[in-house]
Amino acid sequence: MATIQDVAKLANVSISSVSNVINGRTERLRPETFERIEKAIKLLGYRPNQAARHLKTGRLPVIGLLVPSTANPFYGEIAAALESYAQTRHGHRVMLCNTHRDRALETRMLEDLSSFGVAAAILLSSFDDEGHVEDAIERGLAVVSYDRAPGPHGNPGIDHVYADNVEAGRLAAQHLIDHGHRQLAFAMPAGRTNSRNRKIEGFLTAAGQASVPVAARVHEGRAITAYGDSELADIGFELGQRLAAEPDRPTGVVAVNDTLALGLIAGLKTAGLQVPRDMSVIGMDNMMLAAYMSPPLTSIAMPVRQMAEAMVDRAVLRIAEPGAPTEQMRFDPTLVTRESVSAPPSPGSPA
Amino acid sequence: MATIQDVAKLANVSISSVSNVINGRTERLRPETFERIEKAIKLLGYRPNQAARHLKTGRLPVIGLLVPSTANPFYGEIAAALESYAQTRHGHRVMLCNTHRDRALETRMLEDLSSFGVAAAILLSSFDDEGHVEDAIERGLAVVSYDRAPGPHGNPGIDHVYADNVEAGRLAAQHLIDHGHRQLAFAMPAGRTNSRNRKIEGFLTAAGQASVPVAARVHEGRAITAYGDSELADIGFELGQRLAAEPDRPTGVVAVNDTLALGLIAGLKTAGLQVPRDMSVIGMDNMMLAAYMSPPLTSIAMPVRQMAEAMVDRAVLRIAEPGAPTEQMRFDPTLVTRESVSAPPSPGSPA
Repeated sequence: MATIQDVAKLANVSISSVSNVINGRTERLRPETFERIEKAIKLLGYRPNQAARHLKTGRLPVIGLLVPSTANPFYGEIAAALESYAQTRHGHRVMLCNTHRDRALETRMLEDLSSFGVAAAILLSSFDDEGHVEDAIERGLAVVSYDRAPGPHGNPGIDHVYADNVEAGRLAAQHLIDHGHRQLAFAMPAGRTNSRNRKIEGFLTAAGQASVPVAARVHEGRAITAYGDSELADIGFELGQRLAAEPDRPTGVVAVNDTLALGLIAGLKTAGLQVPRDMSVIGMDNMMLAAYMSPPLTSIAMPVRQMAEAMVDRAVLRIAEPGAPTEQMRFDPTLVTRESVSAPPSPGSPA
Repeated sequence: MATIQDVAKLANVSISSVSNVINGRTERLRPETFERIEKAIKLLGYRPNQAARHLKTGRLPVIGLLVPSTANPFYGEIAAALESYAQTRHGHRVMLCNTHRDRALETRMLEDLSSFGVAAAILLSSFDDEGHVEDAIERGLAVVSYDRAPGPHGNPGIDHVYADNVEAGRLAAQHLIDHGHRQLAFAMPAGRTNSRNRKIEGFLTAAGQASVPVAARVHEGRAITAYGDSELADIGFELGQRLAAEPDRPTGVVAVNDTLALGLIAGLKTAGLQVPRDMSVIGMDNMMLAAYMSPPLTSIAMPVRQMAEAMVDRAVLRIAEPGAPTEQMRFDPTLVTRESVSAPPSPGSPA
């Protein structure tokens, strides 16, 4: 098995440079050096010896991962991207926790991780306050938070890696407005989380700034309850049926995510409406299956892989250097057009 | 926080009975006693203290979970079910490993788990031989294998929890035959895994035993390559286009799983064919999203939750009692009818 010495020799660098790459301290390396070390690691199939590292450093190369539920295909994708990168790049393992968006459960899991000796957690949550997270940080856990914009006063102990959700909501609404829609809906489960609030903010902003009058309403379905995110499609289905029955129904809908959009389109169909002929629908997340939905779903893509890698890099760095300053990293969403958005039906046309 | 003593008192049983439930040793308990303890655990919100348990027993309450990729929604669902049950029932954590069906990676991950002190792994794989797993077992890892029927000589060191895939293949083909189909196809990626072979066996058996002549062919798409199971839908899409172009094309298709079926239906649609009018499609797995596909997908359901719980129970038991005999547990699939199967188009009808 290749050693760190072998890698250093092949890449013609010092052992500490290789160590820096493995531990995510890459900011001071020149890109050429970084690439050379990367290549050598790959070529030799080098992996750090975890047990030895642990004994030497006292730091367990394990990252806790808290997600609402991997049963939601979007979180399943992120979990796969995170774990694979943590493993191949840093030789770190991932401990999986499904929180079902239950704050008490999330709190307990954060406690649990510490009791297992895990020093860093990546948290995919959306609670509007992070009080329970701050407790965990006080006990010494490094936390990387996903998809929550940092609060106005900052959260000094937390790394934030997040997509610009205001921009995501704006892009989605603007795309519908550009296609001629003047009656917009934002569809979501009941409950205002941080990321939902920001998406709504962008949605309303686009409607308010349009050069023509645009009606924009938020439609909340029932709240997600006990069993995590497998309910999202059900809630979308119910919302689809409800929207179809509205006397003055919207012609264009922004769904808070693709899984809800999937159910929503099925609900509209059951009610006799076709997408996009009778109603246009745009999702958010651009999950892997969006391209295979019927119709293929237009969606707002978040750069999931880059965000996953940024989160892992931060977590690994803070395991290696508990005192490292935290960072707030924002990523930009992009519009991916497919076939679920068209011009609205002309007034008086049959539905 | 509730203690084991509190639970024992409330359930009116001994502490060792409660301990037996926590550690999965339930076979000697009377069902009434088991239920009473369960209720008390739930009512008091009791969770075993992991750090204390570990120190006392030397056994880390962590189960390794090796899946091809949680980016495949079906594995995302299983991972969520497994982890939640391991946590709420047994207070065990799950260490996640995405193997991308790469044998070398899988082998390394099994080694890795041992080096982290993890004593049991649940393995969702499909390699036809388990040689690399046997090495891990020799080093002391307890392995629970999912969805692989045990070999003819048994694998004494491995627990097998599996669905009857022969019956799954048979049920799917029989459903198409019952609807009048005489030209059947089995659609899958290239490569014969254990579970695929068994599904095909059932598929061909149903065709061979029908009271009328039934043509049944296996159609392999390209093999899954680097990035795990996100390719399954792509392969299905290509297969759909290919099947649509066949001069003597099948009227009924069994897809090896629902994700492939999703792509296949999209591929048929792109080629101008409608499901089920022009071609019927039946999936396998009955994943959560099957009900929201267009058309809603008829599928063969595996009892995922029960299987997930059985796997966790076995893993926990074998952490607690490394010498416990292994078990082979078979679960029965069932047919879930929705709207993707109908009678075949009448001969000469336009497509």
